[in-house]
Amino acid sequence: MNFISSSQNPVIKEIKALKEKKYRDQTGLFFIEGIRFVEEALKEKIEISKILVSDKLADVHGGKEILEQLENSNCCNVYTLTNKLYMEVTDTENPQGILAILNKKSISLESVYDNKNFFLVLDSLQDPGNMGTIIRTADAAGVTGVIVSKGCVDVYNPKVLRSTMGSLFHIPICYSENILQTLEEMKNKGIRLCAAHLSGSKNYFELDYKDNIAIIVGNEANGISDSVAGISNELVRIPMAGKSESLNASVAAGLLMYEVLRLRMKG
Amino acid sequence: MNFISSSQNPVIKEIKALKEKKYRDQTGLFFIEGIRFVEEALKEKIEISKILVSDKLADVHGGKEILEQLENSNCCNVYTLTNKLYMEVTDTENPQGILAILNKKSISLESVYDNKNFFLVLDSLQDPGNMGTIIRTADAAGVTGVIVSKGCVDVYNPKVLRSTMGSLFHIPICYSENILQTLEEMKNKGIRLCAAHLSGSKNYFELDYKDNIAIIVGNEANGISDSVAGISNELVRIPMAGKSESLNASVAAGLLMYEVLRLRMKG
Repeated sequence: MNFISSSQNPVIKEIKALKEKKYRDQTGLFFIEGIRFVEEALKEKIEISKILVSDKLADVHGGKEILEQLENSNCCNVYTLTNKLYMEVTDTENPQGILAILNKKSISLESVYDNKNFFLVLDSLQDPGNMGTIIRTADAAGVTGVIVSKGCVDVYNPKVLRSTMGSLFHIPICYSENILQTLEEMKNKGIRLCAAHLSGSKNYFELDYKDNIAIIVGNEANGISDSVAGISNELVRIPMAGKSESLNASVAAGLLMYEVLRLRMKG
Repeated sequence: MNFISSSQNPVIKEIKALKEKKYRDQTGLFFIEGIRFVEEALKEKIEISKILVSDKLADVHGGKEILEQLENSNCCNVYTLTNKLYMEVTDTENPQGILAILNKKSISLESVYDNKNFFLVLDSLQDPGNMGTIIRTADAAGVTGVIVSKGCVDVYNPKVLRSTMGSLFHIPICYSENILQTLEEMKNKGIRLCAAHLSGSKNYFELDYKDNIAIIVGNEANGISDSVAGISNELVRIPMAGKSESLNASVAAGLLMYEVLRLRMKG
Protein backbone atom coordinates (compact mmCIF):
# COMPACT_ATOMS: atom_id res chain seq x y z
CA MET A 1 0.00 0.00 0.00
CA ASN A 2 1.00 3.59 -0.60
CA PHE A 3 0.54 6.14 2.14
CA ILE A 4 -0.64 9.70 1.40
CA SER A 5 -0.52 12.43 4.00
CA SER A 6 -0.30 15.57 1.86
CA SER A 7 -3.25 17.27 0.19
CA GLN A 8 -0.83 18.27 -2.58
CA ASN A 9 -0.47 14.65 -3.67
CA PRO A 10 -1.66 14.25 -7.30
CA VAL A 11 -4.03 11.40 -6.32
CA ILE A 12 -5.81 13.74 -3.91
CA LYS A 13 -6.04 16.40 -6.61
CA GLU A 14 -7.41 13.81 -9.05
CA ILE A 15 -10.19 12.64 -6.74
CA LYS A 16 -11.24 16.21 -5.96
CA ALA A 17 -11.37 17.03 -9.67
CA LEU A 18 -13.53 13.96 -10.34
CA LYS A 19 -16.39 15.58 -8.45
CA GLU A 20 -16.78 17.81 -11.53
CA LYS A 21 -18.53 16.45 -14.62
CA LYS A 22 -16.08 18.34 -16.83
CA TYR A 23 -13.11 16.41 -15.47
CA ARG A 24 -14.99 13.09 -15.53
CA ASP A 25 -15.74 13.73 -19.22
CA GLN A 26 -12.11 14.65 -19.97
CA THR A 27 -10.56 11.64 -18.25
CA GLY A 28 -13.24 8.98 -18.68
CA LEU A 29 -12.93 8.27 -14.96
CA PHE A 30 -15.36 8.47 -12.03
CA PHE A 31 -15.42 7.32 -8.42
CA ILE A 32 -17.67 5.30 -6.16
CA GLU A 33 -17.75 5.36 -2.37
CA GLY A 34 -18.56 3.03 0.49
CA ILE A 35 -17.78 -0.56 1.45
CA ARG A 36 -20.82 -2.12 -0.17
CA PHE A 37 -20.34 -0.27 -3.44
CA VAL A 38 -16.65 -1.20 -3.70
CA GLU A 39 -17.49 -4.82 -2.79
CA GLU A 40 -20.05 -4.84 -5.60
CA ALA A 41 -17.42 -3.56 -8.05
CA LEU A 42 -15.01 -6.33 -6.97
CA LYS A 43 -17.77 -8.95 -7.21
CA GLU A 44 -18.77 -7.80 -10.68
CA LYS A 45 -15.07 -7.77 -11.70
CA ILE A 46 -15.21 -4.11 -12.72
CA GLU A 47 -11.81 -2.77 -13.74
CA ILE A 48 -10.63 -0.53 -10.91
CA SER A 49 -8.01 2.16 -11.47
CA LYS A 50 -7.22 3.14 -7.87
CA ILE A 51 -8.63 2.55 -4.40
CA LEU A 52 -8.29 5.11 -1.59
CA VAL A 53 -8.86 4.09 2.00
CA SER A 54 -8.83 6.02 5.25
CA ASP A 55 -6.42 4.81 7.93
CA LYS A 56 -9.52 4.48 10.11
CA LEU A 57 -11.31 2.08 7.73
CA ALA A 58 -10.46 -0.95 9.89
CA ASP A 59 -12.45 0.59 12.75
CA VAL A 60 -15.81 0.72 10.94
CA HIS A 61 -18.22 -2.19 10.55
CA GLY A 62 -17.07 -4.33 7.61
CA GLY A 63 -13.84 -2.37 7.28
CA LYS A 64 -11.43 -5.20 8.16
CA GLU A 65 -13.23 -7.57 5.78
CA ILE A 66 -12.95 -5.27 2.79
CA LEU A 67 -9.26 -4.60 3.56
CA GLU A 68 -8.65 -8.36 3.55
CA GLN A 69 -10.52 -8.68 0.28
CA LEU A 70 -8.34 -5.98 -1.22
CA GLU A 71 -5.16 -7.73 -0.10
CA ASN A 72 -6.29 -11.04 -1.54
CA SER A 73 -7.64 -9.63 -4.78
CA ASN A 74 -4.47 -7.72 -5.57
CA CYS A 75 -6.79 -5.67 -7.74
CA CYS A 76 -5.04 -2.38 -8.24
CA ASN A 77 -3.19 0.45 -6.57
CA VAL A 78 -4.44 0.96 -3.05
CA TYR A 79 -3.61 4.24 -1.30
CA THR A 80 -4.01 4.79 2.42
CA LEU A 81 -4.91 8.33 3.52
CA THR A 82 -4.91 9.90 6.93
CA ASN A 83 -8.53 10.11 8.01
CA LYS A 84 -8.29 13.90 8.01
CA LEU A 85 -7.30 13.84 4.35
CA TYR A 86 -10.03 11.31 3.54
CA MET A 87 -12.59 13.71 5.04
CA GLU A 88 -11.32 16.33 2.59
CA VAL A 89 -11.93 14.21 -0.49
CA THR A 90 -15.11 12.36 0.47
CA ASP A 91 -18.44 13.27 -1.10
CA THR A 92 -20.57 11.82 1.71
CA GLU A 93 -21.52 13.20 5.10
CA ASN A 94 -20.70 10.10 7.11
CA PRO A 95 -18.08 8.31 5.04
CA GLN A 96 -17.00 4.75 5.85
CA GLY A 97 -13.54 5.50 4.49
CA ILE A 98 -13.18 3.79 1.12
CA LEU A 99 -13.55 4.93 -2.47
CA ALA A 100 -12.56 3.54 -5.84
CA ILE A 101 -11.71 5.28 -9.10
CA LEU A 102 -13.10 3.42 -12.10
CA ASN A 103 -13.07 3.75 -15.87
CA LYS A 104 -16.35 4.71 -17.48
CA LYS A 105 -17.57 2.01 -19.84
CA SER A 106 -19.04 3.17 -23.11
CA ILE A 107 -21.74 0.76 -24.28
CA SER A 108 -23.25 0.92 -27.74
CA LEU A 109 -26.99 0.35 -28.02
CA GLU A 110 -26.30 -1.98 -30.96
CA SER A 111 -24.50 -4.42 -28.64
CA VAL A 112 -27.38 -4.54 -26.15
CA TYR A 113 -30.38 -5.62 -28.25
CA ASP A 114 -31.74 -9.04 -27.42
CA ASN A 115 -34.82 -11.05 -28.38
CA LYS A 116 -37.10 -9.69 -25.67
CA ASN A 117 -36.07 -6.05 -25.66
CA PHE A 118 -37.29 -4.03 -22.70
CA PHE A 119 -35.64 -0.63 -22.65
CA LEU A 120 -36.01 2.35 -20.42
CA VAL A 121 -35.31 5.71 -22.06
CA LEU A 122 -34.68 8.77 -19.88
CA ASP A 123 -35.24 12.09 -21.63
CA SER A 124 -33.72 15.11 -19.82
CA LEU A 125 -34.15 13.69 -16.34
CA GLN A 126 -32.50 16.18 -13.99
CA ASP A 127 -32.56 15.06 -10.38
CA PRO A 128 -29.58 12.91 -9.30
CA GLY A 129 -31.63 11.02 -6.69
CA ASN A 130 -34.30 10.17 -9.25
CA MET A 131 -31.71 9.04 -11.81
CA GLY A 132 -30.04 6.70 -9.32
CA THR A 133 -33.32 5.31 -7.98
CA ILE A 134 -34.59 4.70 -11.51
CA ILE A 135 -31.43 2.79 -12.48
CA ARG A 136 -31.85 0.68 -9.33
CA THR A 137 -35.50 0.00 -10.22
CA ALA A 138 -34.60 -0.79 -13.84
CA ASP A 139 -32.17 -3.42 -12.56
CA ALA A 140 -34.88 -4.91 -10.33
CA ALA A 141 -37.43 -4.93 -13.16
CA GLY A 142 -34.99 -6.77 -15.44
CA VAL A 143 -34.66 -4.22 -18.23
CA THR A 144 -32.42 -4.95 -21.21
CA GLY A 145 -30.78 -1.54 -20.89
CA VAL A 146 -31.24 2.09 -19.93
CA ILE A 147 -30.79 4.87 -22.49
CA VAL A 148 -29.86 8.27 -21.15
CA SER A 149 -30.35 11.39 -23.30
CA LYS A 150 -27.79 14.16 -23.58
CA GLY A 151 -29.97 16.47 -21.43
CA CYS A 152 -29.97 14.12 -18.42
CA VAL A 153 -27.95 14.62 -15.24
CA ASP A 154 -24.59 12.84 -15.50
CA VAL A 155 -24.91 9.17 -14.55
CA TYR A 156 -21.46 9.38 -12.91
CA ASN A 157 -22.46 12.20 -10.58
CA PRO A 158 -21.65 10.96 -7.03
CA LYS A 159 -25.26 11.51 -5.87
CA VAL A 160 -26.62 9.46 -8.76
CA LEU A 161 -24.16 6.67 -8.03
CA ARG A 162 -25.12 6.55 -4.34
CA SER A 163 -28.80 6.15 -5.22
CA THR A 164 -28.14 3.31 -7.68
CA MET A 165 -27.02 1.08 -4.78
CA GLY A 166 -24.63 -0.74 -7.12
CA SER A 167 -27.14 -1.37 -9.93
CA LEU A 168 -24.91 0.64 -12.25
CA PHE A 169 -22.77 -2.51 -12.58
CA HIS A 170 -25.72 -4.79 -13.32
CA ILE A 171 -27.35 -3.30 -16.41
CA PRO A 172 -26.06 -1.66 -19.59
CA ILE A 173 -26.45 2.11 -19.61
CA CYS A 174 -26.16 3.70 -23.04
CA TYR A 175 -25.63 7.41 -23.59
CA SER A 176 -27.46 9.02 -26.51
CA GLU A 177 -26.08 12.20 -28.03
CA ASN A 178 -29.21 12.54 -30.19
CA ILE A 179 -32.26 11.01 -28.55
CA LEU A 180 -34.60 11.42 -31.55
CA GLN A 181 -32.16 9.57 -33.78
CA THR A 182 -31.75 6.83 -31.17
CA LEU A 183 -35.52 6.44 -30.83
CA GLU A 184 -35.86 6.26 -34.62
CA GLU A 185 -33.24 3.49 -34.71
CA MET A 186 -35.09 1.57 -31.98
CA LYS A 187 -38.35 1.89 -33.87
CA ASN A 188 -36.66 0.48 -36.98
CA LYS A 189 -35.61 -2.50 -34.84
CA GLY A 190 -39.29 -3.18 -34.16
CA ILE A 191 -39.28 -1.74 -30.65
CA ARG A 192 -42.52 -0.03 -29.67
CA LEU A 193 -41.99 3.36 -28.00
CA CYS A 194 -44.30 3.96 -25.09
CA ALA A 195 -43.96 7.30 -23.30
CA ALA A 196 -45.39 8.49 -20.01
CA HIS A 197 -47.40 11.64 -20.70
CA LEU A 198 -49.88 13.60 -18.55
CA SER A 199 -52.28 13.78 -21.51
CA GLY A 200 -51.84 10.17 -22.65
CA SER A 201 -55.04 8.67 -24.02
CA LYS A 202 -54.71 5.32 -22.25
CA ASN A 203 -53.88 4.33 -18.70
CA TYR A 204 -50.50 2.62 -18.47
CA PHE A 205 -52.10 -0.66 -17.42
CA GLU A 206 -54.33 -0.86 -20.49
CA LEU A 207 -51.49 -1.70 -22.85
CA ASP A 208 -49.87 -5.00 -23.76
CA TYR A 209 -46.11 -4.78 -23.26
CA LYS A 210 -45.18 -8.34 -24.19
CA ASP A 211 -43.57 -7.28 -27.48
CA ASN A 212 -40.27 -5.45 -27.76
CA ILE A 213 -40.82 -2.26 -25.84
CA ALA A 214 -39.14 0.93 -24.71
CA ILE A 215 -40.63 2.93 -21.85
CA ILE A 216 -39.83 6.65 -22.06
CA VAL A 217 -39.80 8.89 -18.99
CA GLY A 218 -39.16 12.63 -19.22
CA ASN A 219 -38.02 15.61 -17.22
CA GLU A 220 -39.36 16.09 -13.67
CA ALA A 221 -40.98 19.46 -14.37
CA ASN A 222 -41.78 19.32 -18.08
CA GLY A 223 -42.17 15.64 -18.96
CA ILE A 224 -41.03 14.45 -22.38
CA SER A 225 -40.40 16.93 -25.19
CA ASP A 226 -42.99 17.39 -27.94
CA SER A 227 -40.66 15.86 -30.50
CA VAL A 228 -40.17 12.75 -28.36
CA ALA A 229 -43.96 12.57 -27.85
CA GLY A 230 -44.39 12.90 -31.62
CA ILE A 231 -42.14 9.95 -32.41
CA SER A 232 -43.64 7.66 -29.75
CA ASN A 233 -46.07 4.88 -30.68
CA GLU A 234 -48.13 5.30 -27.53
CA LEU A 235 -48.59 7.99 -24.90
CA VAL A 236 -49.80 6.52 -21.64
CA ARG A 237 -50.88 8.29 -18.51
CA ILE A 238 -50.82 7.28 -14.90
CA PRO A 239 -54.29 7.83 -13.46
CA MET A 240 -54.56 10.34 -10.60
CA ALA A 241 -57.33 9.30 -8.26
CA GLY A 242 -56.76 12.12 -5.76
CA LYS A 243 -55.83 15.78 -5.96
CA SER A 244 -52.15 15.24 -6.72
CA GLU A 245 -51.24 16.59 -10.15
CA SER A 246 -48.32 14.32 -10.86
CA LEU A 247 -46.04 11.68 -9.41
CA ASN A 248 -42.37 11.75 -8.55
CA ALA A 249 -40.42 10.63 -11.65
CA SER A 250 -38.88 7.60 -9.88
CA VAL A 251 -42.31 6.38 -8.82
CA ALA A 252 -43.77 6.93 -12.31
CA ALA A 253 -40.87 5.09 -13.96
CA GLY A 254 -41.22 2.25 -11.43
CA LEU A 255 -44.93 1.82 -12.17
CA LEU A 256 -44.38 1.57 -15.93
CA MET A 257 -41.41 -0.80 -15.69
CA TYR A 258 -43.14 -3.13 -13.25
CA GLU A 259 -46.26 -3.21 -15.41
CA VAL A 260 -44.06 -4.62 -18.18
CA LEU A 261 -42.58 -7.15 -15.76
CA ARG A 262 -46.02 -8.07 -14.41
CA LEU A 263 -47.40 -8.81 -17.87
CA ARG A 264 -44.30 -10.71 -18.94
CA MET A 265 -44.34 -12.83 -15.76
CA LYS A 266 -48.01 -13.60 -16.35
CA GLY A 267 -46.87 -14.85 -19.78
CA MET B 1 -48.40 44.25 6.99
CA ASN B 2 -45.87 44.18 9.80
CA PHE B 3 -42.23 44.80 9.01
CA ILE B 4 -39.43 42.88 10.75
CA SER B 5 -35.80 43.86 10.45
CA SER B 6 -34.30 42.46 13.64
CA SER B 7 -33.27 38.85 14.16
CA GLN B 8 -34.23 39.30 17.82
CA ASN B 9 -37.91 39.61 16.86
CA PRO B 10 -39.94 36.79 18.52
CA VAL B 11 -41.46 35.76 15.17
CA ILE B 12 -37.96 35.13 13.82
CA LYS B 13 -37.08 33.11 16.91
CA GLU B 14 -40.32 31.11 16.53
CA ILE B 15 -39.67 30.15 12.93
CA LYS B 16 -36.10 29.10 13.68
CA ALA B 17 -37.31 26.95 16.57
CA LEU B 18 -39.90 25.26 14.33
CA LYS B 19 -37.11 23.58 12.39
CA GLU B 20 -36.75 21.31 15.44
CA LYS B 21 -39.22 18.46 15.97
CA LYS B 22 -39.16 19.08 19.73
CA TYR B 23 -40.55 22.58 19.32
CA ARG B 24 -43.08 21.50 16.69
CA ASP B 25 -44.32 18.86 19.15
CA GLN B 26 -44.50 21.38 22.01
CA THR B 27 -46.39 24.05 20.08
CA GLY B 28 -48.44 22.00 17.62
CA LEU B 29 -47.16 24.29 14.86
CA PHE B 30 -45.10 23.71 11.71
CA PHE B 31 -44.20 25.72 8.63
CA ILE B 32 -44.38 25.29 4.87
CA GLU B 33 -42.36 27.18 2.28
CA GLY B 34 -42.72 28.34 -1.31
CA ILE B 35 -45.36 30.08 -3.41
CA ARG B 36 -47.03 26.93 -4.67
CA PHE B 37 -47.24 25.34 -1.24
CA VAL B 38 -48.74 28.47 0.37
CA GLU B 39 -51.19 28.81 -2.55
CA GLU B 40 -52.25 25.21 -1.96
CA ALA B 41 -52.86 25.96 1.72
CA LEU B 42 -55.01 28.98 0.80
CA LYS B 43 -56.90 26.96 -1.81
CA GLU B 44 -57.58 24.14 0.64
CA LYS B 45 -58.64 26.72 3.26
CA ILE B 46 -56.07 25.50 5.77
CA GLU B 47 -56.00 27.62 8.91
CA ILE B 48 -52.84 29.72 8.74
CA SER B 49 -51.28 31.21 11.86
CA LYS B 50 -48.72 33.58 10.31
CA ILE B 51 -47.18 34.28 6.91
CA LEU B 52 -43.64 35.59 6.50
CA VAL B 53 -42.55 37.13 3.21
CA SER B 54 -39.24 38.53 2.02
CA ASP B 55 -39.28 42.14 0.80
CA LYS B 56 -37.91 40.69 -2.46
CA LEU B 57 -40.88 38.33 -3.01
CA ALA B 58 -42.46 40.65 -5.61
CA ASP B 59 -39.36 40.21 -7.80
CA VAL B 60 -39.66 36.42 -8.22
CA HIS B 61 -41.94 34.65 -10.71
CA GLY B 62 -45.44 34.46 -9.22
CA GLY B 63 -44.47 36.70 -6.30
CA LYS B 64 -46.77 39.62 -7.12
CA GLU B 65 -49.71 37.26 -7.66
CA ILE B 66 -49.37 35.59 -4.26
CA LEU B 67 -48.99 38.99 -2.55
CA GLU B 68 -52.25 40.10 -4.17
CA GLN B 69 -53.93 36.88 -3.06
CA LEU B 70 -52.76 37.50 0.48
CA GLU B 71 -54.15 41.04 0.46
CA ASN B 72 -57.52 39.87 -0.84
CA SER B 73 -57.79 36.82 1.40
CA ASN B 74 -57.10 38.79 4.57
CA CYS B 75 -56.12 35.38 5.91
CA CYS B 76 -53.89 36.09 8.83
CA ASN B 77 -50.93 38.07 10.13
CA VAL B 78 -48.50 38.74 7.33
CA TYR B 79 -44.95 39.82 8.26
CA THR B 80 -42.51 41.31 5.78
CA LEU B 81 -38.83 40.58 6.41
CA THR B 82 -35.73 42.09 4.88
CA ASN B 83 -34.43 39.55 2.38
CA LYS B 84 -31.28 39.16 4.46
CA LEU B 85 -33.38 38.13 7.44
CA TYR B 86 -35.50 35.82 5.29
CA MET B 87 -32.31 34.03 4.17
CA GLU B 88 -31.56 33.44 7.86
CA VAL B 89 -34.85 31.67 8.57
CA THR B 90 -35.41 29.77 5.32
CA ASP B 91 -34.94 26.01 5.14
CA THR B 92 -34.37 25.90 1.38
CA GLU B 93 -31.29 26.61 -0.73
CA ASN B 94 -33.00 28.85 -3.27
CA PRO B 95 -35.98 30.27 -1.43
CA GLN B 96 -38.73 32.15 -3.26
CA GLY B 97 -39.33 34.25 -0.16
CA ILE B 98 -42.58 33.09 1.43
CA LEU B 99 -43.44 30.75 4.27
CA ALA B 100 -46.49 30.06 6.38
CA ILE B 101 -46.85 28.82 9.96
CA LEU B 102 -49.75 26.39 10.33
CA ASN B 103 -51.43 24.41 13.08
CA LYS B 104 -50.93 20.67 12.99
CA LYS B 105 -54.21 18.85 12.58
CA SER B 106 -54.69 15.75 14.67
CA ILE B 107 -56.90 13.26 12.83
CA SER B 108 -58.33 10.17 14.50
CA LEU B 109 -58.37 6.98 12.47
CA GLU B 110 -61.95 6.42 13.64
CA SER B 111 -63.09 9.50 11.72
CA VAL B 112 -61.45 8.40 8.48
CA TYR B 113 -62.96 4.95 7.82
CA ASP B 114 -65.21 4.76 4.79
CA ASN B 115 -66.92 2.00 2.83
CA LYS B 116 -64.02 1.24 0.51
CA ASN B 117 -61.12 1.54 2.90
CA PHE B 118 -57.70 1.72 1.29
CA PHE B 119 -55.07 2.61 3.85
CA LEU B 120 -51.35 2.97 3.67
CA VAL B 121 -49.46 2.18 6.87
CA LEU B 122 -45.87 3.35 7.28
CA ASP B 123 -43.88 1.45 9.90
CA SER B 124 -40.65 3.18 11.00
CA LEU B 125 -39.98 4.84 7.66
CA GLN B 126 -36.95 7.05 8.18
CA ASP B 127 -36.01 9.03 5.10
CA PRO B 128 -37.73 12.45 4.79
CA GLY B 129 -37.65 12.36 0.97
CA ASN B 130 -39.27 8.93 0.92
CA MET B 131 -41.94 9.96 3.43
CA GLY B 132 -42.89 13.02 1.37
CA THR B 133 -42.86 11.17 -1.95
CA ILE B 134 -44.99 8.38 -0.50
CA ILE B 135 -47.60 10.85 0.81
CA ARG B 136 -47.68 12.45 -2.66
CA THR B 137 -48.15 9.02 -4.28
CA ALA B 138 -50.81 8.04 -1.73
CA ASP B 139 -52.76 11.16 -2.71
CA ALA B 140 -52.45 10.26 -6.41
CA ALA B 141 -53.52 6.67 -5.80
CA GLY B 142 -56.62 7.84 -3.92
CA VAL B 143 -55.96 6.27 -0.53
CA THR B 144 -58.46 6.75 2.29
CA GLY B 145 -55.69 7.75 4.67
CA VAL B 146 -52.07 7.28 5.65
CA ILE B 147 -51.10 5.90 9.06
CA VAL B 148 -47.70 6.85 10.37
CA SER B 149 -46.12 4.83 13.19
CA LYS B 150 -44.31 6.40 16.14
CA GLY B 151 -40.92 5.31 14.75
CA CYS B 152 -41.35 7.23 11.46
CA VAL B 153 -39.60 10.48 10.58
CA ASP B 154 -41.76 13.48 11.58
CA VAL B 155 -44.32 14.27 8.87
CA TYR B 156 -43.83 17.99 9.63
CA ASN B 157 -40.09 17.88 8.97
CA PRO B 158 -39.45 20.59 6.32
CA LYS B 159 -37.82 18.08 3.95
CA VAL B 160 -40.81 15.76 4.17
CA LEU B 161 -43.17 18.65 3.50
CA ARG B 162 -41.22 19.76 0.42
CA SER B 163 -41.43 16.28 -1.09
CA THR B 164 -45.20 16.01 -0.52
CA MET B 165 -45.76 18.80 -3.08
CA GLY B 166 -48.87 19.89 -1.18
CA SER B 167 -50.46 16.44 -0.88
CA LEU B 168 -50.30 16.81 2.89
CA PHE B 169 -53.47 18.92 2.60
CA HIS B 170 -55.31 16.42 0.42
CA ILE B 171 -55.39 13.23 2.47
CA PRO B 172 -55.85 12.41 6.15
CA ILE B 173 -52.62 11.48 7.90
CA CYS B 174 -53.09 9.72 11.22
CA TYR B 175 -50.35 9.28 13.78
CA SER B 176 -50.22 5.98 15.67
CA GLU B 177 -48.54 5.85 19.06
CA ASN B 178 -48.87 2.06 19.11
CA ILE B 179 -48.84 0.57 15.63
CA LEU B 180 -49.68 -3.01 16.69
CA GLN B 181 -52.76 -1.80 18.52
CA THR B 182 -53.79 0.33 15.53
CA LEU B 183 -53.35 -2.62 13.16
CA GLU B 184 -55.40 -4.82 15.48
CA GLU B 185 -58.19 -2.23 15.45
CA MET B 186 -58.11 -2.09 11.65
CA LYS B 187 -58.30 -5.85 11.44
CA ASN B 188 -61.35 -5.80 13.70
CA LYS B 189 -62.94 -3.35 11.26
CA GLY B 190 -62.57 -6.00 8.56
CA ILE B 191 -59.56 -4.41 6.89
CA ARG B 192 -57.10 -6.90 5.41
CA LEU B 193 -53.48 -6.13 6.30
CA CYS B 194 -51.10 -6.68 3.44
CA ALA B 195 -47.42 -5.99 4.09
CA ALA B 196 -44.50 -5.69 1.71
CA HIS B 197 -41.88 -8.24 2.76
CA LEU B 198 -38.75 -9.54 1.03
CA SER B 199 -39.74 -13.11 1.92
CA GLY B 200 -43.43 -12.75 1.06
CA SER B 201 -44.92 -15.92 -0.41
CA LYS B 202 -46.87 -14.20 -3.19
CA ASN B 203 -45.99 -11.51 -5.70
CA TYR B 204 -47.84 -8.28 -4.99
CA PHE B 205 -49.83 -8.57 -8.24
CA GLU B 206 -51.21 -12.00 -7.39
CA LEU B 207 -53.58 -10.68 -4.74
CA ASP B 208 -57.07 -9.27 -4.98
CA TYR B 209 -57.22 -5.88 -3.27
CA LYS B 210 -60.85 -5.02 -3.97
CA ASP B 211 -61.90 -5.51 -0.35
CA ASN B 212 -61.03 -3.18 2.49
CA ILE B 213 -57.27 -3.15 2.53
CA ALA B 214 -54.26 -1.65 4.26
CA ILE B 215 -50.88 -1.76 2.57
CA ILE B 216 -47.97 -1.77 5.03
CA VAL B 217 -44.52 -0.52 4.09
CA GLY B 218 -41.59 -0.68 6.51
CA ASN B 219 -38.22 0.82 7.26
CA GLU B 220 -35.78 1.43 4.38
CA ALA B 221 -33.05 -0.82 5.76
CA ASN B 222 -34.95 -3.39 7.81
CA GLY B 223 -38.44 -3.57 6.33
CA ILE B 224 -41.39 -4.18 8.65
CA SER B 225 -40.83 -5.49 12.17
CA ASP B 226 -41.47 -9.16 12.97
CA SER B 227 -44.44 -8.27 15.14
CA VAL B 228 -46.04 -6.27 12.30
CA ALA B 229 -45.33 -9.16 9.92
CA GLY B 230 -46.93 -11.52 12.45
CA ILE B 231 -50.18 -9.57 12.64
CA SER B 232 -50.48 -9.10 8.86
CA ASN B 233 -52.93 -11.18 6.81
CA GLU B 234 -50.64 -11.37 3.81
CA LEU B 235 -46.94 -10.83 3.16
CA VAL B 236 -46.30 -9.93 -0.45
CA ARG B 237 -43.04 -9.52 -2.24
CA ILE B 238 -42.04 -7.44 -5.21
CA PRO B 239 -40.27 -9.71 -7.70
CA MET B 240 -36.65 -8.86 -8.51
CA ALA B 241 -35.89 -9.84 -12.08
CA GLY B 242 -32.31 -8.52 -12.05
CA LYS B 243 -29.48 -8.41 -9.55
CA SER B 244 -30.90 -5.61 -7.41
CA GLU B 245 -31.67 -6.83 -3.89
CA SER B 246 -34.40 -4.38 -3.06
CA LEU B 247 -36.25 -1.29 -4.24
CA ASN B 248 -36.31 2.24 -2.91
CA ALA B 249 -39.16 2.46 -0.36
CA SER B 250 -41.05 5.14 -2.34
CA VAL B 251 -41.00 3.00 -5.45
CA ALA B 252 -42.09 -0.11 -3.53
CA ALA B 253 -44.96 1.78 -1.86
CA GLY B 254 -45.97 3.22 -5.24
CA LEU B 255 -46.15 -0.22 -6.86
CA LEU B 256 -48.39 -1.64 -4.13
CA MET B 257 -50.71 1.36 -3.98
CA TYR B 258 -51.14 1.52 -7.74
CA GLU B 259 -51.84 -2.21 -7.91
CA VAL B 260 -54.81 -1.55 -5.60
CA LEU B 261 -55.92 1.34 -7.80
CA ARG B 262 -55.46 -0.71 -10.99
CA LEU B 263 -57.65 -3.54 -9.70
CA ARG B 264 -60.29 -1.19 -8.35
CA MET B 265 -60.44 0.76 -11.63
CA LYS B 266 -60.78 -2.52 -13.51
CA GLY B 267 -63.80 -3.14 -11.26
